Amino acid sequence: MKLTAMKKEEIQKINQEAVCQYEAFKSKKLQLNMARGKPCAKQLDLALGVLEALHARSEFANSNGDDCRNYGVWNGLPEMRAIFSDMLGVPADQIVLGNNSSLQMMFDCISQGYTHGFGGCEPWCRQKKVKFLCPVPGYDRHFAVTEYFGIEMIPIPMLKTGPDMDILEELVNKDETVKGCWCVPKYSNPTGITYSDETVRRFAALRPAAKDFRIIWDNAYCVHDLTDTPDTLLNLYEECVKQGTEDYVFFFASTSKISFPGAGVSALAGSPRNIADIKKRISAQTIGPDKLNQLRHILFLHDISGVHELMQGHREILEPKFRLVEAALEKELGDLGIAKWSKPNGGYFVNLDVMNGCAKRVVSLCKEAGVILTDAGATFPYGADPNDSNIRIAPTFPPEEELSQAMELLCICVRLAASEKLLFERT
Amino acid sequence: MKLTAMKKEEIQKINQEAVCQYEAFKSKKLQLNMARGKPCAKQLDLALGVLEALHARSEFANSNGDDCRNYGVWNGLPEMRAIFSDMLGVPADQIVLGNNSSLQMMFDCISQGYTHGFGGCEPWCRQKKVKFLCPVPGYDRHFAVTEYFGIEMIPIPMLKTGPDMDILEELVNKDETVKGCWCVPKYSNPTGITYSDETVRRFAALRPAAKDFRIIWDNAYCVHDLTDTPDTLLNLYEECVKQGTEDYVFFFASTSKISFPGAGVSALAGSPRNIADIKKRISAQTIGPDKLNQLRHILFLHDISGVHELMQGHREILEPKFRLVEAALEKELGDLGIAKWSKPNGGYFVNLDVMNGCAKRVVSLCKEAGVILTDAGATFPYGADPNDSNIRIAPTFPPEEELSQAMELLCICVRLAASEKLLFERT
Repeated sequence: MKLTAMKKEEIQKINQEAVCQYEAFKSKKLQLNMARGKPCAKQLDLALGVLEALHARSEFANSNGDDCRNYGVWNGLPEMRAIFSDMLGVPADQIVLGNNSSLQMMFDCISQGYTHGFGGCEPWCRQKKVKFLCPVPGYDRHFAVTEYFGIEMIPIPMLKTGPDMDILEELVNKDETVKGCWCVPKYSNPTGITYSDETVRRFAALRPAAKDFRIIWDNAYCVHDLTDTPDTLLNLYEECVKQGTEDYVFFFASTSKISFPGAGVSALAGSPRNIADIKKRISAQTIGPDKLNQLRHILFLHDISGVHELMQGHREILEPKFRLVEAALEKELGDLGIAKWSKPNGGYFVNLDVMNGCAKRVVSLCKEAGVILTDAGATFPYGADPNDSNIRIAPTFPPEEELSQAMELLCICVRLAASEKLLFERT
Repeated sequence: MKLTAMKKEEIQKINQEAVCQYEAFKSKKLQLNMARGKPCAKQLDLALGVLEALHARSEFANSNGDDCRNYGVWNGLPEMRAIFSDMLGVPADQIVLGNNSSLQMMFDCISQGYTHGFGGCEPWCRQKKVKFLCPVPGYDRHFAVTEYFGIEMIPIPMLKTGPDMDILEELVNKDETVKGCWCVPKYSNPTGITYSDETVRRFAALRPAAKDFRIIWDNAYCVHDLTDTPDTLLNLYEECVKQGTEDYVFFFASTSKISFPGAGVSALAGSPRNIADIKKRISAQTIGPDKLNQLRHILFLHDISGVHELMQGHREILEPKFRLVEAALEKELGDLGIAKWSKPNGGYFVNLDVMNGCAKRVVSLCKEAGVILTDAGATFPYGADPNDSNIRIAPTFPPEEELSQAMELLCICVRLAASEKLLFERT
């Protein structure tokens, strides 16, 4: 029965029950952290071979004859670019490798727009107004980058097919102060949604008012399937080439959630014109990326098949955790009508929407009882969730036993906060 | 006898001799590259232990308990910061580790001045005029960074004690558009000069007109001694603290020429206030530096003693190359008075000043005969050497036999260009 349909006495009963359960949990003095989408230690062990890879090798020349220990090769080793080419669907000679953080490649890219501009336009720092579109809920670190540069963020609602393209098209095609749009097109953070073919085609068919408009296509979870029926994402680059709009997109990916979050390889891809722009900056910025780490990854992964094989190992560890989260939500909240949650086919998050006005309360109750969740509101620009309803669950890091406890507590807190609210409204 | 003091016929004889020798060299069809200050393969082999270091280790927690494979630790592992603290003479908690490129840390730092400003001042992009002081000859990649941001570069002559501080003080203390100064204070690139104690004290005693003035103290060669009588550099940080001027300096170093140029660890240091500024940017920019590579370096180097021990190995390889270069210059050019060169106690370069108006000609003659040198002019802002006299010799990369050939050719070209010029002037 739905909580909202219950009589006051019934709600009071549920509230008291939740309070009791909550107090019992508090006395356990838990210390669990589900705040970030971090792989667990077991997952990291899958890639230990990366560290052994260079051991057996007596020479360090890659296929181009460069000594990978020395300076140079601004765009990275060809074999590693080939792997990212397969991951991103962009030709290998239009891939540029970075170090361990694709976020840094995105930051540097936006910084370049700010200081030097794209497509021959004025740098953003010399333009009066610069706006970025932010599908919400979205990734807090994306929003932190735009906020750092003082770029105005406009939230765009996420539908089941991706961002609401009616609203997005209207803004991009008519407002020349709109310079960018954040996208996590596959297993979106946190909703788990994969953009539909039509959404991808509509992105490719944009006719931006601003010639320096750039889509930040952060394909962070492109090989991160968790079920036998994975989502598929249409190749945006190919669609753009058909439309002649390939200069409007930068593509990103990394091995952060394939090998090691702190010591993987990241990549950027784009049109030949965009790569030429990027080369100008990178040639001044650095002596080249860490090629030994690329070599390690090449020797361990070999090619895209090696990546898929490794991702199977990740799935074996992660799938049960996602099932556990969904089962807990279903069991504890299923019939109360006070929460909705995603059942993603991949990625790193379960998206939980609680009753309006309850998200902050739930996160704070959990914290008081020793379970740290991502801050309520973090999935929105400026940390402001207008409905105060969105919570990001990150099930990957804790061991299953801890995850199970954390989910039990979370569900108690959701019931507690919802019943509190309803009782307050009826007083 | 000095070439300039010779009779025309004597010069003609020397010229003809040089032409003959040059043609003989050309027929050898050499292919040698002395353009960049790259360590040679033998040097890189010294640090192979870095790659073995993680092999034997079954767990990846550093002294803070962080899993070094995962996200986080924005400023890097404490043990590695301690090593850089000893190298730079700045407290370890004021050290921030980067990835493989200290150049990138400098670029990012200047980018931050450009986009956000320092010391609460307006970002440089919003100021009408921004100038940087560039001691010359200097490091071409420094100049490329300032040029990328459209910052006006003002050359400052290098004396035997470092930059001409009379000129530098006048500009820094009176012109509020002067926002920075590039420095390689020990074994300066390319002159090999180490700043005198008085020069360091005068840097610390600057009273900049611009509150957002920042010295870029690139201590790239701080442990790179090549003789039994190494230079010593006064600790600028300590001198600044005495003067209350520590906010005016950013310090940089890396293991690029200790372990691997392409896969080392870099570091930035500064006052607590400057580090707080840097943290704001880095927290938005990246998920943290590559801690596994830091761990490798910690396990291999242990501490500053390990660094010094390793540098002894580099010295054993490099010292004979520097002696070879100096001996060739002395033997082939010693009594002609047409060139001056440095005899550095460390670093990566020998600085060669040929007759005014001859540097481009010498570099181009060498190139035609198969030996690539650093472009003439590269050691000056905008590639413009006003005297066309400075040539940077980078003896580290070629094997001794090749270096010997390259030096022989270089000396022939210096004699050829100088005699050509004198003959032309006397016609």
